[in-house]
Amino acid sequence: MSLSASDIEILIREGVPMANDIGFRVEEARSGFAKTRLKFSDRQIRPGGTISGPVQMALADASMYAAVLASLGKVEMAVTSNLSINFLQRPAPGDLSAEAVVLRMGRRLAFCEVRLLSGEGSDQQLVAHVTGSYALPAQ
Amino acid sequence: MSLSASDIEILIREGVPMANDIGFRVEEARSGFAKTRLKFSDRQIRPGGTISGPVQMALADASMYAAVLASLGKVEMAVTSNLSINFLQRPAPGDLSAEAVVLRMGRRLAFCEVRLLSGEGSDQQLVAHVTGSYALPAQ
Amino acid sequence: MSLSASDIEILIREGVPMANDIGFRVEEARSGFAKTRLKFSDRQIRPGGTISGPVQMALADASMYAAVLASLGKVEMAVTSNLSINFLQRPAPGDLSAEAVVLRMGRRLAFCEVRLLSGEGSDQQLVAHVTGSYALPAQ
Amino acid sequence: MSLSASDIEILIREGVPMANDIGFRVEEARSGFAKTRLKFSDRQIRPGGTISGPVQMALADASMYAAVLASLGKVEMAVTSNLSINFLQRPAPGDLSAEAVVLRMGRRLAFCEVRLLSGEGSDQQLVAHVTGSYALPAQ
Repeated sequence: MSLSASDIEILIREGVPMANDIGFRVEEARSGFAKTRLKFSDRQIRPGGTISGPVQMALADASMYAAVLASLGKVEMAVTSNLSINFLQRPAPGDLSAEAVVLRMGRRLAFCEVRLLSGEGSDQQLVAHVTGSYALPAQ
Repeated sequence: MSLSASDIEILIREGVPMANDIGFRVEEARSGFAKTRLKFSDRQIRPGGTISGPVQMALADASMYAAVLASLGKVEMAVTSNLSINFLQRPAPGDLSAEAVVLRMGRRLAFCEVRLLSGEGSDQQLVAHVTGSYALPAQ
Repeated sequence: MSLSASDIEILIREGVPMANDIGFRVEEARSGFAKTRLKFSDRQIRPGGTISGPVQMALADASMYAAVLASLGKVEMAVTSNLSINFLQRPAPGDLSAEAVVLRMGRRLAFCEVRLLSGEGSDQQLVAHVTGSYALPAQ
Repeated sequence: MSLSASDIEILIREGVPMANDIGFRVEEARSGFAKTRLKFSDRQIRPGGTISGPVQMALADASMYAAVLASLGKVEMAVTSNLSINFLQRPAPGDLSAEAVVLRMGRRLAFCEVRLLSGEGSDQQLVAHVTGSYALPAQ
């Protein structure tokens, strides 16, 4: 059964307390793709005024999970197998959005790419690039 | 000026709100090394009863930073350049400890390895393996 | 001075003997981008009939270097700082092509993404995904 | 059936032509561990006089495979799932040795760490750090 963006947001917020803490939202979801957003809050700031690395990693991880759920329906036992993030620019204080794509859906692993973006419209900038794998439950 | 484990814990808890939230502790610190701990709390749990991936990533990132601070003294503008984590086993509910080692301290990058461990003494198990780089400020 | 695809191919083949061995070609090059190709040869095969992982890694590394040279001109002392490859599908026996993009050109690091593709036209498939950083010489 | 260092060297040299080309040797092998060596040759040099990145990656990949074969016996269909290398120092011209450790042997994935070392005895230096996963055939 396919899940809506709203279904996926609820599943992730219930399952991952940190996702709830950071105000994680799912804006779009379709098979192989999810677009998500992190509402800005002062609590995410680190020295220098930017959103901390762990918050960016939490957003990326939840976004990958959203794209997997959008592709497969409810697979609660899927777990992150690895995640690799490159921080490219310090984000300005403001919302972060993320675009997660499933590049390869295998039987045992889903391989995803996530781009974390700061700013809106033509000012949007790539602040971090993430790849990761989700281990899928045996079917 | 070299920093004690306690100095480093205070610096990181002040600078990274999430480190404070997750109860981050620095137990040992010397040049090139830090041993840290995450006190267990129910809030870190994800479906299946284990500590969530984002919490493990936050612990690893803070532990790398602790090892860099232990090596260089107060370098507040050091920022994570990349972080790659492999989740190897679901940790049991309980404290997580981490051992971070600086494998290469260059002029511009510090390359670190972190092992996340669950359990105590002879029951200790490797639950995740992390590598990452810190970009150092120009001197 | 900007370099043509042919200039870049010659520079890389002269500088990296393995690039020459594997028949590395640069088909397109412009600032931030390179499209390359590996001519198929029986020597690259591993058990199961596919192109070996090390050959794919060599192609990815040379393609990143091509995209950096296309962006900056002749920077012979640029060196790979890290490379992370995910093998997604066994390529069929045949040429491999690669598309390398510079996602972030900083003062000290160029961060690149490379997609390795097998087959032609509408049969083209993503066989591996690569990210990596090039350390740039101090200017 | 357990395999000797010599058995493993022959299997890898037969299966991976590039391993043969680069003079890959297996010096020690036991469950979870392999120590290997790359004989120096002028063909591996890149501008600046060091052993090229692709040759280091080929050594790391073959060393992981050696440690997996040493652990499981002959598993010809095991394939590298991902490999992440950080280049830490330019190796001096000379042999490279590698120590590969299986950090986690799961049912479906073997996760390995490899250290590439240049020089001998007390002059030995870590030149690259590698992690990677091998996908194991379904049993």
